[in-house]
Amino acid sequence: MVTYRAPLDDIRFCFDMLDYEGRVASLPGHEEAGRELVDAVLEEGARFCEERLLPLNRPGDEEGCTLENGIVRTPAGFKEAYRDYSAAGWVGLTADPEHGGQGLPKAVNTALGEILCSTNLSFAIYPGLSHGGFDAIERWGSDALRTRYLPKLASGEWAATMNLTEPQCGTDLGLIRTRAEPDGEGAFRVTGSKIFISGGDQDLSANIIHLVLARLPDAPPGTKGISLLLVPKFLCAEDGSPTIANNVVCASLEAKMGIKAAATCAMHFEGAKGWLVGEPHGGMKAMFTMMNEARLMVAMQGIGLAEAAYQSAVTYARERLQGRSLSGPKAPDRAADPIIVHPDVRHQLMTMRALNEGCRALALWVGIEADIAARHADPGERARADDFVALMTPVCKAFFTDHGTDAASRGMQVFGGHGYIREWGMEQLLRDARIAQIYEGTNGIQALDLVGRKLALGNGRLLRRFFHPLTAFTGQIAEHDDMRDMAGLLAKATGRLQQATAVIARRGLADPEEAGAAASDYLRLFALVALAWVWARMVVATAGRDDPFARAKRHTATYYFTRILPETSALFARIMSGKAAVMALDDAAF
Amino acid sequence: MVTYRAPLDDIRFCFDMLDYEGRVASLPGHEEAGRELVDAVLEEGARFCEERLLPLNRPGDEEGCTLENGIVRTPAGFKEAYRDYSAAGWVGLTADPEHGGQGLPKAVNTALGEILCSTNLSFAIYPGLSHGGFDAIERWGSDALRTRYLPKLASGEWAATMNLTEPQCGTDLGLIRTRAEPDGEGAFRVTGSKIFISGGDQDLSANIIHLVLARLPDAPPGTKGISLLLVPKFLCAEDGSPTIANNVVCASLEAKMGIKAAATCAMHFEGAKGWLVGEPHGGMKAMFTMMNEARLMVAMQGIGLAEAAYQSAVTYARERLQGRSLSGPKAPDRAADPIIVHPDVRHQLMTMRALNEGCRALALWVGIEADIAARHADPGERARADDFVALMTPVCKAFFTDHGTDAASRGMQVFGGHGYIREWGMEQLLRDARIAQIYEGTNGIQALDLVGRKLALGNGRLLRRFFHPLTAFTGQIAEHDDMRDMAGLLAKATGRLQQATAVIARRGLADPEEAGAAASDYLRLFALVALAWVWARMVVATAGRDDPFARAKRHTATYYFTRILPETSALFARIMSGKAAVMALDDAAF
Repeated sequence: MVTYRAPLDDIRFCFDMLDYEGRVASLPGHEEAGRELVDAVLEEGARFCEERLLPLNRPGDEEGCTLENGIVRTPAGFKEAYRDYSAAGWVGLTADPEHGGQGLPKAVNTALGEILCSTNLSFAIYPGLSHGGFDAIERWGSDALRTRYLPKLASGEWAATMNLTEPQCGTDLGLIRTRAEPDGEGAFRVTGSKIFISGGDQDLSANIIHLVLARLPDAPPGTKGISLLLVPKFLCAEDGSPTIANNVVCASLEAKMGIKAAATCAMHFEGAKGWLVGEPHGGMKAMFTMMNEARLMVAMQGIGLAEAAYQSAVTYARERLQGRSLSGPKAPDRAADPIIVHPDVRHQLMTMRALNEGCRALALWVGIEADIAARHADPGERARADDFVALMTPVCKAFFTDHGTDAASRGMQVFGGHGYIREWGMEQLLRDARIAQIYEGTNGIQALDLVGRKLALGNGRLLRRFFHPLTAFTGQIAEHDDMRDMAGLLAKATGRLQQATAVIARRGLADPEEAGAAASDYLRLFALVALAWVWARMVVATAGRDDPFARAKRHTATYYFTRILPETSALFARIMSGKAAVMALDDAAF
Repeated sequence: MVTYRAPLDDIRFCFDMLDYEGRVASLPGHEEAGRELVDAVLEEGARFCEERLLPLNRPGDEEGCTLENGIVRTPAGFKEAYRDYSAAGWVGLTADPEHGGQGLPKAVNTALGEILCSTNLSFAIYPGLSHGGFDAIERWGSDALRTRYLPKLASGEWAATMNLTEPQCGTDLGLIRTRAEPDGEGAFRVTGSKIFISGGDQDLSANIIHLVLARLPDAPPGTKGISLLLVPKFLCAEDGSPTIANNVVCASLEAKMGIKAAATCAMHFEGAKGWLVGEPHGGMKAMFTMMNEARLMVAMQGIGLAEAAYQSAVTYARERLQGRSLSGPKAPDRAADPIIVHPDVRHQLMTMRALNEGCRALALWVGIEADIAARHADPGERARADDFVALMTPVCKAFFTDHGTDAASRGMQVFGGHGYIREWGMEQLLRDARIAQIYEGTNGIQALDLVGRKLALGNGRLLRRFFHPLTAFTGQIAEHDDMRDMAGLLAKATGRLQQATAVIARRGLADPEEAGAAASDYLRLFALVALAWVWARMVVATAGRDDPFARAKRHTATYYFTRILPETSALFARIMSGKAAVMALDDAAF
């Protein structure tokens, strides 16, 4: 049985540490989104997730989705839960009030996203896709599209999907074959096959708005010839009601390892009516508006599942009696000690905990910077914040989702054989977590985005804006006796990252494969340094406190610095070894 | 679709490198088991696995086992496959010819075990358990038991199980409650409940011989009061035919993450008739005869699944076209290059390959030493070999099975979204692989066995016998110009392991929790050094060769030394940091 309570105390601590009040509640349009309101919103959201979504998670996995007569049915209870979730305003939490949204900061949605994924990842996927669709239409759509679709998406009445992948093309979108031909009346006829479409069909919303990558007749080859089309499942009648079936069908459902309550559809478009979103051949830009949003949400999936695994493992480790503590019986009146006394069990729990808390803090930091990037009065400050978000998006997506799978696996290990059987729910967490390393750009693609794009932007501007405040911060904390050791470890890891950056940039200039061969290790090194930074910030934020929460925070920080951060030494050595060993083998010799 | 061909070339290379002919085929009783015979046996075994077992693997996962009216049915085709597998003599491959076995060396069975697990892990579990049961009865059983049961187990007509776990007791066998009461006629009545019993019931063999841990009426508490009982599913009638149902039933089947074609049963014993195997209260010793065998077989499960994942990923990476090589198009006449050109894909493949080949070579080395330990004429040589096997058993079980899961996950990542759907079989490999880290002693328990038992034996005798030849070998290869770099890396890693050993021994003497907190990292460090040793041996074995196989071996060795071995630096730092960070948090603060 997965046990879970939303980590609201830790979220509040992070918001304090990151000065949410001073940095977000002061932004134009967010004046009313002060801590008091946000705390109340998160409490309410946590209650909904714990009480309504968590109980549906395991039954949803057992039942899965079904396709009959072209209609997808989600598991029992999902429809009612989605109806109430939408009615309570959760789908449109960050949407502009002008379009019927709640207008709350993105950072709040980040926090809620973790809780949502902890309780029911499959459910979370449906409204999650609507966010990205909303953003793409808001940013790139015509006024007519915005007026018609945004309020319906914000309210949750309608849902959105992303239709990118085709059988012959996943990562390489330049290979897309789906066509969109002008119908002479300002709209298009879209024809083609898409696969792996989350929520491609479902019985939750009255309409489904597909955002489809396709080629116009005059499209140049490759990614420069891709356009984004909006293709509703139902077209609207005169009265605006979605009653006219468009020529798009769900051809089949994928049987997959996990997220079984999230419908993964193969979609066929046969001259389906659609409208262009953004410029002709400008689909990649518009798609990235959805994609960047989606990547940060997927990062939260990693933490969400890791937190559910952690809390469940802690509960089990306190209850399960096996063996005696190596330092003498801790529960002498019982047949054995609870397994939480064993160092190896603690090692699993502490690893999960240290990364959960670190990732959460970093995620909320990124969420706050995203709000600043969107709304700050000063364009320079907006640009700075935007750089931080752009840099951290691939880092968070890849590292957090790697951690999600790892943590789910560690949680299972604490349960032993009981973790491997379905009954306890731990194996579902692992099966569900695994997809997040793959979709919305595999983690290998995230690493290439970091090394190939983000490092190069503005001649390394994103990196300078990362390293400068980090180095300044490290210098400041080094002045305090009780932070000196930590500052030393932080400085050492930062030095490794800086040196690796320089080497990759230099070698990559001469030979892009050098950068490619270092990319995944470099991303992981980057994440570990970013987490060390935020962990040190958290320790600073507990200064002067001696309550159990603050003590646990400092202990967990110490675990991070002594037991997790050392991985940077191995990553550094691997990066430095260059591409030779990676590329040496002939293709035929594998 | 999982693609797989048994790696017979690599197995032959390992047998050459390890001097199988000189070291095993010269042992008393193995004079006829020369390389020619062994190669033919492995080819025949590989053919059976590839042609008969691999095609049953995915259907078996989809269908699973069923329990109806107390009878377990295995998936379609398993019964016929088991019949033919037994008839061909594979179950009794290493069993003494005196009991109807083939009398082949254990090393051969190690090689076959990998192939078996690559093609169908669920199937492999059934005969695998019979090996352990055979060994326990052969070693500890009375003449009457040996005469009655060994030939039937060797032929596969009957199968064996291990009944250890109970609902309240997994790792901590001291908590066992199952009772065995003398029936006054030399036998016992066994009563109790066991869970997680692999093959507890099935429709493959005519009888099932349960080896059950239980307490006699006068048993002292804890593990010192545990006895091993042999409890057949069917008792034999006068004519020796197993027709009289014993009081043991399969009460339920577990629904689990993977190995769905392997029946995992909850067993109820209600006064079932059984016979003591070994001394009263001597069950732990007898159990370990089965368990050590089982641990080495589980280690092979890790490699087996890793090899299936590797080969499938290579096939896919050669066929799937996405993107262009960073060094310019490699297939300019096609829409895109095969993804094997991308450094990150190669990084996944090389990691799998380097560890598969390293683990395979180490496993066969251990297999050969097991044969020497069993049969060498010189007791000193037997003892030396036995020490090596004892030391490497927990190392191989834990490291290989961690690798199995990791490799299955890497294989899936190469497939991207196609890896996550059931169709391609990659997600089954991951689900199947995951159990091996848990059963037959979790990997955390393996680490405690290494640190708590094996390190201490004979005041560190096992370690001295490991380090002495390793250091001598390193010194030898360092004399050759082309091996000097590798020797340096090997010496450095060995130095880390030696230093970690000394620190753990010293700290652990004063505080056992220090050893416990270091155990898992230490085991992993140990494995990486052992693999570095065997990799260097493999490079030596390719000296003077410039064929594609030898070149690939050397390239892969370089990958191991430059990209995998560096993890030892991080492990060393973690071990040195001590227990403080692991144990600091109050139980209540988690």
